[in-house]
Amino acid sequence: MKNSIGGPGSVSGLMLRLGQCLFASASIGVMVSASGFSSYTAYCYLIASMGLQVLWSLGLACLDIYALKFKRDLQNPVVLSLFAVGDWVTAFLSLAAASSSAGVTILYSRDLDFCSLQQIPCSRFQISVAFSFITWFFIAISSLVMFWILGSI
Amino acid sequence: MKNSIGGPGSVSGLMLRLGQCLFASASIGVMVSASGFSSYTAYCYLIASMGLQVLWSLGLACLDIYALKFKRDLQNPVVLSLFAVGDWVTAFLSLAAASSSAGVTILYSRDLDFCSLQQIPCSRFQISVAFSFITWFFIAISSLVMFWILGSI
Repeated sequence: MKNSIGGPGSVSGLMLRLGQCLFASASIGVMVSASGFSSYTAYCYLIASMGLQVLWSLGLACLDIYALKFKRDLQNPVVLSLFAVGDWVTAFLSLAAASSSAGVTILYSRDLDFCSLQQIPCSRFQISVAFSFITWFFIAISSLVMFWILGSI
Repeated sequence: MKNSIGGPGSVSGLMLRLGQCLFASASIGVMVSASGFSSYTAYCYLIASMGLQVLWSLGLACLDIYALKFKRDLQNPVVLSLFAVGDWVTAFLSLAAASSSAGVTILYSRDLDFCSLQQIPCSRFQISVAFSFITWFFIAISSLVMFWILGSI
């Protein structure tokens, strides 16, 4: 179980967690650098959701490093249940945040065509949303692997 | 397995499918009745996603009725895998559609305060988005049950 691909305490699992941290941080960084983002509820929610994702993924990445260094087995149904629930909750929050931000960004850039008319940093919003979707993709893989392991034990 | 709560071929599973059909249809109906919805990409995507959801849930509801009537067992790994993948794909599409529409609706009603100024049927948009979130809630339960059954067999 310890060597299950993407599972807790495996090298691939650690890579997924670090990827989640990296892209969620990048999404926050790009969004914060865009002026006027705080006027939009969707973008504020994106930052909150990505912030939660960074905290969660960083915590589990530290646990993975600990498990790999001291060769500890994390195959405990209670611990795995906790990880699975946390992963699912953050995955749904990330997808909701990314989608709502994408909805607003598409409205501005395509439907209303505000980007070419007004001083709105659309490209930064788009990059931030793209990073948040990549984050969601990684956390979705982690969630599926976690749920699968939990269903199998 | 046939009697697993919310699983395929069970009464609770059939109720979940009918609930998904009902709320997805209601979401489409309310959205279509709102004038000017077609100007917004997010709302068009919501209708497309809810339409797919109705087709998928109706198909599985018919299969549940067939299984209940003729007392057939649907516990086949290949069939269950197909259901699980379909459920997950439609669940993610529904959440993305509901969230992006919610992002646009919140932008209009709160951030820009357009609802009180212009002739936009905000209340219909809000009701439609609420129905789509209820649809997602039902399909999320179905997806979790399906994945759990698949991981257990």
